[in-house]
Amino acid sequence: MVEKEDIKAFAAKFDPQPFHLDEAAAHETIFGGLAASGWHTAAMTMRLLVDSEIKPAGGIVGAGFDEFRWPRPVRPGDELRLESEVLDARPSQSHPRQGLIKVRTTTLNQINEPVQIMIASLVVLRRPEEIANCYLATRVRSLRKQSKGIANTIV
Amino acid sequence: MVEKEDIKAFAAKFDPQPFHLDEAAAHETIFGGLAASGWHTAAMTMRLLVDSEIKPAGGIVGAGFDEFRWPRPVRPGDELRLESEVLDARPSQSHPRQGLIKVRTTTLNQINEPVQIMIASLVVLRRPEEIANCYLATRVRSLRKQSKGIANTIV
Repeated sequence: MVEKEDIKAFAAKFDPQPFHLDEAAAHETIFGGLAASGWHTAAMTMRLLVDSEIKPAGGIVGAGFDEFRWPRPVRPGDELRLESEVLDARPSQSHPRQGLIKVRTTTLNQINEPVQIMIASLVVLRRPEEIANCYLATRVRSLRKQSKGIANTIV
Repeated sequence: MVEKEDIKAFAAKFDPQPFHLDEAAAHETIFGGLAASGWHTAAMTMRLLVDSEIKPAGGIVGAGFDEFRWPRPVRPGDELRLESEVLDARPSQSHPRQGLIKVRTTTLNQINEPVQIMIASLVVLRRPEEIANCYLATRVRSLRKQSKGIANTIV
């Protein structure tokens, strides 16, 4: 679960704006209440991804994004999970030992509303047997549950 | 300046992979040495942006990105600065009191290599006199200098 104090701590360090720092001040803003920084949402998504069953050879190394949107904010008390799908896999033209995979990852809250949608290009080391058959559909429990180690049983 | 310990602390929380956590292990990876998580680069960029002279009415509220790339990693000891330019500003079709501005922000290291390039769509409150003439070119000192308060003299 996304804790209010974690939202404020992340914001104090990286995104110190009223709607991420203080409930009362946030009510007067476009968010109408405390909301996590989009970068916090992105970072929590990355943690869920690293803990998921998506294990490209060489790690999860992002090069860029074809699409990246925050359709709505993450609120205190939200529970996040991911749905990921590998859309494409191809060898790198410039680095013969590397490949590029395109992964769409949607971050959903506890009522299945998308809070982040991204299509990322990841750099992977080529292992033909691993690049083939790379359709994955992942459902990952909340970050809190993961951090308590349940994710290890999924992975 | 980006400190080695900050790279590891961010990674331990949000992106626990060997190339972001441990120098020796990182040497064996695609990065060839310790590198900051791209999400850490993004978060540091946001901090520089919040501390910069870019002050849209209503705050810096990202909706999504037309472009987002990490051409190279941030390394321990790097000093980051931004160059930002407002490319476009238009009223929102669905929310008459809001507008959308498109801002290209390039994050550069101390030898002027881009480490992150993004074109973001930001939601702003409409104030016609502020939306007009919105070309900005910003050069911001390193995060460390900013955190010591020099940025306040720029803002």
